[in-house]
Amino acid sequence: MKRIVLLRLGHRPERDKRITTHVGLTARMLGAEGMLLASDDSGIVQSLEDVVRRWGGNFYIKNNVSFKQEIRNWKEGGGKVCHLSMYGVNLPDLADELKKCDKLMIVVGAEKVPPEIYQLADWNVAVGSQPHSEVAAVAITMDRIAEGEPLEKEFPGAELTIVPAERGKHVIENAGE
Amino acid sequence: MKRIVLLRLGHRPERDKRITTHVGLTARMLGAEGMLLASDDSGIVQSLEDVVRRWGGNFYIKNNVSFKQEIRNWKEGGGKVCHLSMYGVNLPDLADELKKCDKLMIVVGAEKVPPEIYQLADWNVAVGSQPHSEVAAVAITMDRIAEGEPLEKEFPGAELTIVPAERGKHVIENAGE
Repeated sequence: MKRIVLLRLGHRPERDKRITTHVGLTARMLGAEGMLLASDDSGIVQSLEDVVRRWGGNFYIKNNVSFKQEIRNWKEGGGKVCHLSMYGVNLPDLADELKKCDKLMIVVGAEKVPPEIYQLADWNVAVGSQPHSEVAAVAITMDRIAEGEPLEKEFPGAELTIVPAERGKHVIENAGE
Repeated sequence: MKRIVLLRLGHRPERDKRITTHVGLTARMLGAEGMLLASDDSGIVQSLEDVVRRWGGNFYIKNNVSFKQEIRNWKEGGGKVCHLSMYGVNLPDLADELKKCDKLMIVVGAEKVPPEIYQLADWNVAVGSQPHSEVAAVAITMDRIAEGEPLEKEFPGAELTIVPAERGKHVIENAGE
């Protein structure tokens, strides 16, 4: 099975708290195995771990990583690195190649990223060459390169499960073990 | 041509500033004609209008609308209304129907939405029945129902244009008129 991990660069505690949380939720929902946070923010870790506890699956969050070390390890393990921004090669021209990759690190920055990321990445990918939401970039990229239907993925071990409904909210509390 | 407008509910100035800006950027990038903001926040309007001025196109932002009035007007004009949340019918089961619709309002809330939106919407759509980023929900929905390749859309009248590049940033400043 394809492995995808997300690396979040340039996160500033407080200012980027909600955007980074949305990046993490999006990556989890679309099948990433975890998120590496290249900043120190235990609040992000807690809020995403709380989601995993209640909604299931095995998504992990690693706080305060060295991005260079993580990229080096990933590449040494045979992985590829794809950096999403508004400046790279447009996603439609690379999606087929990314889709073939079975071990992919997706890197997204906040407003500023360390310039060396453009060299460290195997691919610099633009998700449209327009002002950019990193949440949307992760969403569109992962949706387009997913195996099967990512929106039907199940998350084992959930305390809560939503039953799709035409009107209103239908949530099941699963019995504990 | 298909018309799509985005309606943003439940925006709280300050707390939701960046998420709502990302919702607007995403809607613009993927071809919405504008965003209706059902809260009063002129800062959002300014920052998105600034993007439009520099990066082109005709995306508009309407501040402090009445959501009920806007939905009523839209429906009277023959439009349909699709509310994205984590509770509705899963997107893969509705995307074909949404794609056929040539005048679509996409509604996204923040943490809380007025309950009547579930009744006012023609469709309540879940983008995966998992904890939810409204930015990702807009991105995936608009990408899946787009006509043609939304990431190759051009934005006329831009001061700045990005040239896709394998490494680094390549931005052209267009000559004024």
